[in-house]
Amino acid sequence: MEFKLLKNNTPLFNVFSELGQRIYLPDGIFHWSGRAKKEAEIIGTIGTAYGYEKDFIDGGLDNWAPLYLDSFKNYTNIDITSVVPYASIGGLQELRNIWKEWIIYKAGYKNKESRKTEQLERYITLPTVTQGITNGLFMVGSLFLNEGDFIISPNKRWGNYDNIFSKNLNAEIKSFDFFRNKQFNLEGFEQAIIEVAEKQEKILIILNFPNNPTGYTPLKSERDAIIQKLKETQKSIDKPIIIFVDDAYEPYVYNDNSIDHSIFYELMELDENIIPIKLDGISKELLAYGGRIGFVTIGLKPSWIQNEEELKQLKQEINNKLEGLNRSSISNTNHFYQAVTLKMFEEIGFEMIVQKREKNRNLLKNRYELINKELKKIENTEFSIDPNSGGFFLFVNLDYDKIKATEFADHLLKKYKVGVIPIEKPEININGIRIAYCSIDINDISEMVDRIHKAFNDF
Amino acid sequence: MEFKLLKNNTPLFNVFSELGQRIYLPDGIFHWSGRAKKEAEIIGTIGTAYGYEKDFIDGGLDNWAPLYLDSFKNYTNIDITSVVPYASIGGLQELRNIWKEWIIYKAGYKNKESRKTEQLERYITLPTVTQGITNGLFMVGSLFLNEGDFIISPNKRWGNYDNIFSKNLNAEIKSFDFFRNKQFNLEGFEQAIIEVAEKQEKILIILNFPNNPTGYTPLKSERDAIIQKLKETQKSIDKPIIIFVDDAYEPYVYNDNSIDHSIFYELMELDENIIPIKLDGISKELLAYGGRIGFVTIGLKPSWIQNEEELKQLKQEINNKLEGLNRSSISNTNHFYQAVTLKMFEEIGFEMIVQKREKNRNLLKNRYELINKELKKIENTEFSIDPNSGGFFLFVNLDYDKIKATEFADHLLKKYKVGVIPIEKPEININGIRIAYCSIDINDISEMVDRIHKAFNDF
Repeated sequence: MEFKLLKNNTPLFNVFSELGQRIYLPDGIFHWSGRAKKEAEIIGTIGTAYGYEKDFIDGGLDNWAPLYLDSFKNYTNIDITSVVPYASIGGLQELRNIWKEWIIYKAGYKNKESRKTEQLERYITLPTVTQGITNGLFMVGSLFLNEGDFIISPNKRWGNYDNIFSKNLNAEIKSFDFFRNKQFNLEGFEQAIIEVAEKQEKILIILNFPNNPTGYTPLKSERDAIIQKLKETQKSIDKPIIIFVDDAYEPYVYNDNSIDHSIFYELMELDENIIPIKLDGISKELLAYGGRIGFVTIGLKPSWIQNEEELKQLKQEINNKLEGLNRSSISNTNHFYQAVTLKMFEEIGFEMIVQKREKNRNLLKNRYELINKELKKIENTEFSIDPNSGGFFLFVNLDYDKIKATEFADHLLKKYKVGVIPIEKPEININGIRIAYCSIDINDISEMVDRIHKAFNDF
Repeated sequence: MEFKLLKNNTPLFNVFSELGQRIYLPDGIFHWSGRAKKEAEIIGTIGTAYGYEKDFIDGGLDNWAPLYLDSFKNYTNIDITSVVPYASIGGLQELRNIWKEWIIYKAGYKNKESRKTEQLERYITLPTVTQGITNGLFMVGSLFLNEGDFIISPNKRWGNYDNIFSKNLNAEIKSFDFFRNKQFNLEGFEQAIIEVAEKQEKILIILNFPNNPTGYTPLKSERDAIIQKLKETQKSIDKPIIIFVDDAYEPYVYNDNSIDHSIFYELMELDENIIPIKLDGISKELLAYGGRIGFVTIGLKPSWIQNEEELKQLKQEINNKLEGLNRSSISNTNHFYQAVTLKMFEEIGFEMIVQKREKNRNLLKNRYELINKELKKIENTEFSIDPNSGGFFLFVNLDYDKIKATEFADHLLKKYKVGVIPIEKPEININGIRIAYCSIDINDISEMVDRIHKAFNDF
């Protein structure tokens, strides 16, 4: 593949990493097996073993089927053809289609025929299935980051970003203080962009709302300010800005003043050279962490494309790059959870899935409200709660000069039998504890906060 | 983690790639959540949402459970705790244990108490679960290969090796002609090792028996000669040799004169600095391609270890490296297929699984015998079949000066409606067709070969 449009019509190819520029999915074997399916009477291209079911299964039928061990049928009622064979490299076609519809649905646009819906339908790529969001982050990180390149992230972030981008890919994370006066730190964000723009020809940013570990989700007013700041800064630096939007906790927002959909959708509407990439998946959205099904979806710009043919071709070029990365690292993602996700969407429908999930969300919301209420009673300058309105966690900052977070967590655990995760990274201004209320019984919350209070008073 | 033993007692650390030397699994979050599990009354460390089942499932029980959508229960009868939560980073502990037993079982040693069994039990690492063998290859490739490093492979190899090692990791594949006079090409193999030893401080080799695309599996006499050649060459070059043993097709050997177990086991017995790494998985062994469950198992040398404590510590260090790679690229592997694999082993047992698989193997064996018999009728210097006795495929070489493989495949498909995969890489002496008899009805084989014969005569 020549990647003509990626090279000539978009800023993407130039800002890809060396790996991103190099990688592709060769068409050889797929070309010939595809042709054989259409043209052949006798097919000798398929690398999955097949036979007549009756020849390898006791009581099997006369149908031509993938060879399998009948024991698999003890564990699932899904048709064996959705359990045993490979799913395709980029994911099951129908699942990719329906997840795209799901992304459009999640935007929450009222009128389905609205211009915004149409734009979304046109300008997002068909989601590529990855091995969970971790693997999605690894994929887009590999696509854009050379060793030593910077990616901008709030200082309070999922610890695995450091594993993926820094330890594995050997890129640098440019941290900025997430909050200033309990609000999103716009100045710090802008400053980080400007500093990185002095060093490299592309700006990479990762945003995660609701955030792990803080639970922070922007108020609508904050979101508008973030967008505005991005637009201005992009204009002033005049370099492409790629934003990885980590939407792991997308549906779990508990405060009506906070944004009720991913910031991805607002970024999609920008004319500027600001390119959003959406990372979402079933781990939290469908409460199926063990499924390892994530999706990577790239937002394209209308200005890159002259006509329908180019749009189609550009999507094919991007798809080839992403499938090339999948093929050369994981081959493809497991079939069962893809099939189950597809079936749930088809059989139950979007509305009903959201409705079923609502009970879960309400459980978490009640805990969120109670724990915040209780913690507010302790709050002072040495014990300050980060703004939070969603997700699974919240974060309490401790004054590093007085209380080291790990010492606090150790004391809290030993004396008061309460377990929390301390994060102590003074070099990036973090010293505090993450509380995972997602897994705490609401009836224990007051007692837990009481014990935290006592532990705090001990210092 | 300090990796003291890896550095001081083994040649491994020095021959790791920069990534391999850099990567580790930080203990932070796991340390604190592990302590909380043991010491806490109230646990606020777990990032998976939990609640009382009755609070989020209609008709749910009073038990504390991971939040899930009840629809999942429509598709599997496996307990929801084996479907919804994450499996651990290196894989389910019980599955890793039982796969280790399976590896020992597959050696086929008659007396279970024999010294060989004990040695295997002691000196192989606990298998690490990866996203299929592709991901295992990507993992060990990442661990050892810097950009530009060479890895030695037969010219006839799975095409995805080129995607993984070359396109993705930017390493170089040093090819040698697989066969000479229809036997394993010992001289070419040796020459490749010697040439690479002149350029780098480590020798990396990948072997795959039964092989894709040829189906080649060494005769026992050939295996002994390969081992002998490796020993001699290692002594003469005096550099560590790491061998990736790709055992994807391990159980599918159809000829009694060929090796009946992986060459991994013979390599395990060597005192020389020849370190085997076994890559196997359920895709073909349990006929569950869609499961994406592979395993990476490293063979250690008795000479590296002074006592039990060191053995344990070294295994922990290696485990930390491999889990660090998993965590920073895929997080972990899907839960359902791990749980099913574990259940099958526990409920059915090794013997019975092999017995159930035997019907499948016999189907393939019958096709193997027939297709070889039929093809032999055509065979001549311009149409020569590579030695084959296992796996899913065989390979027919065409004379490049007379017939280009892609032209042949195109003609065969267009005129005779037979689909095969042409491989045309004259730069590494390959020009021929791969026939996947694993998916061809035995009743079609004579007809297929007849059409191939006609197509051949057309040239």
